[in-house]
Amino acid sequence: MSRNPAFPPSASDFLLASKRCEITVLQQLLQMGKLVGGVSQLIHVLQRERGTINIYLCSRGALYGEQLAGRMQQVQQAELVVQRQLARLDASAAPLAGASRLFSRIAWALHNLTLLPILRQRVQNLQVNHPETMNTFNEIIRSLLALVFEAADACAEPGMARQLIAMFSFMQGKELAGQERAIGSAGFAAQHFSDDDQRQLLLLIEGQERCFQTFSEFADAGSLGVWQKMLQQQDGEFERLRRVACTQKQFSGGKDISLRWFDITTARIDGMKQVEDRLEDALMASCRASLAAANEALANEIYAPQALAESYAVFVADPLGEGETLTSDGISPRLGRSMMELIQQQSQRLQVLSEELTAARASLRERREIERAKGLLIQHRGLSEEDAYKLLRKMAMNQNKRLIDIAQAMLAVADILPEK
Amino acid sequence: MSRNPAFPPSASDFLLASKRCEITVLQQLLQMGKLVGGVSQLIHVLQRERGTINIYLCSRGALYGEQLAGRMQQVQQAELVVQRQLARLDASAAPLAGASRLFSRIAWALHNLTLLPILRQRVQNLQVNHPETMNTFNEIIRSLLALVFEAADACAEPGMARQLIAMFSFMQGKELAGQERAIGSAGFAAQHFSDDDQRQLLLLIEGQERCFQTFSEFADAGSLGVWQKMLQQQDGEFERLRRVACTQKQFSGGKDISLRWFDITTARIDGMKQVEDRLEDALMASCRASLAAANEALANEIYAPQALAESYAVFVADPLGEGETLTSDGISPRLGRSMMELIQQQSQRLQVLSEELTAARASLRERREIERAKGLLIQHRGLSEEDAYKLLRKMAMNQNKRLIDIAQAMLAVADILPEK
Repeated sequence: MSRNPAFPPSASDFLLASKRCEITVLQQLLQMGKLVGGVSQLIHVLQRERGTINIYLCSRGALYGEQLAGRMQQVQQAELVVQRQLARLDASAAPLAGASRLFSRIAWALHNLTLLPILRQRVQNLQVNHPETMNTFNEIIRSLLALVFEAADACAEPGMARQLIAMFSFMQGKELAGQERAIGSAGFAAQHFSDDDQRQLLLLIEGQERCFQTFSEFADAGSLGVWQKMLQQQDGEFERLRRVACTQKQFSGGKDISLRWFDITTARIDGMKQVEDRLEDALMASCRASLAAANEALANEIYAPQALAESYAVFVADPLGEGETLTSDGISPRLGRSMMELIQQQSQRLQVLSEELTAARASLRERREIERAKGLLIQHRGLSEEDAYKLLRKMAMNQNKRLIDIAQAMLAVADILPEK
Repeated sequence: MSRNPAFPPSASDFLLASKRCEITVLQQLLQMGKLVGGVSQLIHVLQRERGTINIYLCSRGALYGEQLAGRMQQVQQAELVVQRQLARLDASAAPLAGASRLFSRIAWALHNLTLLPILRQRVQNLQVNHPETMNTFNEIIRSLLALVFEAADACAEPGMARQLIAMFSFMQGKELAGQERAIGSAGFAAQHFSDDDQRQLLLLIEGQERCFQTFSEFADAGSLGVWQKMLQQQDGEFERLRRVACTQKQFSGGKDISLRWFDITTARIDGMKQVEDRLEDALMASCRASLAAANEALANEIYAPQALAESYAVFVADPLGEGETLTSDGISPRLGRSMMELIQQQSQRLQVLSEELTAARASLRERREIERAKGLLIQHRGLSEEDAYKLLRKMAMNQNKRLIDIAQAMLAVADILPEK
């Protein structure tokens, strides 16, 4: 609009403004895509540090102590990259769609990250409670994932929204794989898996499957191919150890089997990072392509409709002009018709985009609603997260309905649920 | 954020940024509310001009010829106000949420308005087809209403979204009342209502009821009160003339009864404008109140969390600090906890807002989906708009379902519908 300060504003001014807004949105998405890439890397090195600390604490300081400093440095480097990207978000000044929510999530993640320095100091000195330390890492990663969720939810371009949903789902699956590694490492090291450990492992495996299923539905073909190839090449020993961990209570070979499990699951998680990197590349490539296309379209049209509108303005300034310049309905001049077609094209394109976006977002919203229904059960029935999920699933199976239907029904009657 | 260029960015920076974004959104809404008020006025004077032209054409130039110039001037004044508001939209620079779609609608409306000067010239000279002239006015008003719809749809603040939905629904009902006035005036003047006229009148009456029903669900108590009082005081003759128009084919007293109908329906439409003005006042008042509250909250908190965060930063810079400054879980410092609470408050507030907004928007989307299902029937079955609506309604009644359920089912199977 700024290039057309003419008054009164014309239809073509606003048609161009509409196209320029789309470009602004794509530019913001490019920035958002970079941030998501930075967060993906930060989560990866946090998972690595968590894994190393886990072995260090399991072995009461006997193992991996020499790796702690290196892991910390990797996290600090990744943090710095994310901090720079966040500072640039600020510089962009323009309020992104859904920015309040996104910024609120960023605040949460940044706050959680400030817990790390003191925690590390206490880990080094073996002054910590082991499960609480793992929980702190889990919570930090959860808040970073929530940030990615918000970025996907705020994304107004359907192609990129789909890729962000694929990315978010995959990152979530990878995090569950990281938690599976941690419980497995601790159990193998202690040569014992409790009932609770085994229940948690089963839920983590099931959760990964759900996440990778969503990823498969939304990912581009290239990233999906990398993932499928990785699945085919997967070490058979991984599934064997998984089975042992999930079904047996006692076994021998503690320290060795624990480190073997750690190495195999670490290789698996590192492989997942490659899929994530591929997703990130695809995300950025499609964003750059959309941006280039939108810029080119704008450059081509910037004079065309303008020229049309100007000759049209001349035309209507002479309302007594000859009848031949009118179309059959006697009202709309031909040139006005062309303008109308351009506007209708833009309208229809935006309508299609909006519908695609609604479809992509529905999947995200369902995920959120299931989480909220679980939260209600935790709050009102005093259930654990695990039991809440199981109850929802059982209700869905009994009624032959989808999980989301039960979740929505539960949210609809939330007001009348009894307090715990 | 601009006030906190510190690097690395902190949680409190982004908490404040989140609150500032909300304020930006409210400021944009204030501007949008003014635009909607301007459009309401523009539509009102366009309806007036259409009514006057209708009588002028019905009487073949015998009546209201002297009023044409005055009506045109009122429209031009209202157009100028809207143009100024649109120019200010430009100046705000910040891309509004959903701005592409809104700007595309504005382009459509501005383009349609350019059709007026030449149309008026031809009306003056009685060189026009009467129904086509009415259709051009209807189309202009429809594009202005679409703009209001888009403003309501893009609105990210649930309270204002509800009021914009009330406003849009009421404006739509008022426009149907204007179309009812036009058909009635022409029919009474010609001393004849065709089957088609009577069908259209019934649909317009039914449509008004639907619109005012939606308005009643979403309006503030004050505006609703004005509307209900107006309904109670309504002239009994209006319903009598409505009944005559809808049920009788022939009658006497043409010109007089036509002007009587015109006066009564005009008084009714002018009364509706008062309800609209009241809605607009309520909209602006609640937007200003939200903005004032948000600004005050920001002013109060701008130093508080900042101060907290700073003392917290000092604290974590000394990770060997005494144990007493740690909370029971041994990880989160007390001051960090307070920061966490502030972030959680903001998160929860945004979550509640988002849910309210989703509920308010659902009503708008349903309206749009019913329109699109109607469009499908028109396209694929070659039905008129009237018959398409009737068919949808019949299917809904037969299956004991809501209209929206049938519309959504139709959209879901759109791909397999046979071509006309």
